[in-house]
Amino acid sequence: MKSALQNIGYLGKVPCSYKSSPMAAHFELHIEQGPHLVSAGQQVGVVTAVQAYRWFRLNVIGRDTHTGTTAFEHRADALYAFARMMVRAREVAAGKGCLASVGIIEAKPGSVNTVPGEVSFSLDIRGPETELVAEVEKELRRGFDEIAAAEGAGIGKPCRVEWTLDFDSPAVKFHDDCIECVQESAHAVVADAPVADTKSLVRPIMSGAGHDSVFTSKRVPTSMIFVPCKDGLSHHPEEFCSADDCATGASVILQAVVRYDRKRFA
Amino acid sequence: MKSALQNIGYLGKVPCSYKSSPMAAHFELHIEQGPHLVSAGQQVGVVTAVQAYRWFRLNVIGRDTHTGTTAFEHRADALYAFARMMVRAREVAAGKGCLASVGIIEAKPGSVNTVPGEVSFSLDIRGPETELVAEVEKELRRGFDEIAAAEGAGIGKPCRVEWTLDFDSPAVKFHDDCIECVQESAHAVVADAPVADTKSLVRPIMSGAGHDSVFTSKRVPTSMIFVPCKDGLSHHPEEFCSADDCATGASVILQAVVRYDRKRFA
Repeated sequence: MKSALQNIGYLGKVPCSYKSSPMAAHFELHIEQGPHLVSAGQQVGVVTAVQAYRWFRLNVIGRDTHTGTTAFEHRADALYAFARMMVRAREVAAGKGCLASVGIIEAKPGSVNTVPGEVSFSLDIRGPETELVAEVEKELRRGFDEIAAAEGAGIGKPCRVEWTLDFDSPAVKFHDDCIECVQESAHAVVADAPVADTKSLVRPIMSGAGHDSVFTSKRVPTSMIFVPCKDGLSHHPEEFCSADDCATGASVILQAVVRYDRKRFA
Repeated sequence: MKSALQNIGYLGKVPCSYKSSPMAAHFELHIEQGPHLVSAGQQVGVVTAVQAYRWFRLNVIGRDTHTGTTAFEHRADALYAFARMMVRAREVAAGKGCLASVGIIEAKPGSVNTVPGEVSFSLDIRGPETELVAEVEKELRRGFDEIAAAEGAGIGKPCRVEWTLDFDSPAVKFHDDCIECVQESAHAVVADAPVADTKSLVRPIMSGAGHDSVFTSKRVPTSMIFVPCKDGLSHHPEEFCSADDCATGASVILQAVVRYDRKRFA
């Protein structure tokens, strides 16, 4: 990282450390990256927590065979095993109020008439509590082993599955004082909106995605503000947040910082 | 093709045509590429036919969304739809005594925390009769549409699926005279084997894979000879045929040619 920054002339003099650059608190403004605010017609999300997530890479090892000459019962089809695993992952995660997603997949050798003998894929498990994510993982480890064992059992050479943990981010609860400052500020900013109950424009919300605030929250009181985005899309060319929503968010974060500062010296 | 051959100095003077290079018949010797002969301890397969197959490329179009912020009911997950399709494909094909296989898959955009909005994959459908392959295709077109429609229905933007036919090879029945020559030759070649019933070392067999003989059979009487290969593997570094099996196969094809020639002028 240091040499990369040096190469582009961006290495500064201030050490990258919460001790050298102390903060009293951390507030972060972000688009929701999800559909809840926009579909409910709400203006501000008061972020109380960030869900837990774990990222894995999995390999399924089966056996390359010819698609035309190998009966189903003689196959150890790593891609078919993957397909069953992905269906199972949603079933198990949904049953525990969690999410499980596959974003990356590669099948080898990658030929139209060869049953893939090796598949690797990413698995992203998320949930409101660290414990729930661990439970989903445990159930999927058992379930995937069972699926792998069934595929190729007929030839005595069943598939097997290997897991590698790439990233583990436990659930984060934001700081009560910060959350309170964001909530009061949000209510104040939307107070003039032309609706009967302006408080209904503000909702507490849990972040599904990870953010810088996950890391600052380990050191200083932290919370976040969400504003709506078009169709809940992010990391995508269609990502969009209206100027009004940007302005609302900026007002809320400014007021939250001021409120927190007053509270600190009160 | 012509310019490629010219570039490497391989363009010859003889026209590539069954008219310029007439053949009375065509016999082809091949490893089985499947496990039937080797697992039954048999020595020769008399190939009577080649199963039908169709190769397709399919695209599933859904919607890229964030894995952490998009509930299952808000997703149009093209990869999840694919997983259900692959499970369905085996179910439908097996029910009709056919095969369905996916060898190639690509999911876009290919990021661990993005639900894939686009998946493309190959589909190889095979069966003993051209009609059966068509029936599997028909049932899968209906089934895949149903799976696509369910994924993303919650947001009114369901997945959709597109099919492209890449290759269509109807079932082939080889020529009775050629089959007879191969069968008589096979019985003659294994006659001295140290088993009670040497005829049990020879079996009629249908080819699961395509071969040159599929094309020659359109012009001249044709059939094939199969010999066992290790674990039924082919197109693979572990592909192996013993010297004895190679010799058996060579003897059978030589005798078949001689027998056919005698029959022709008898």
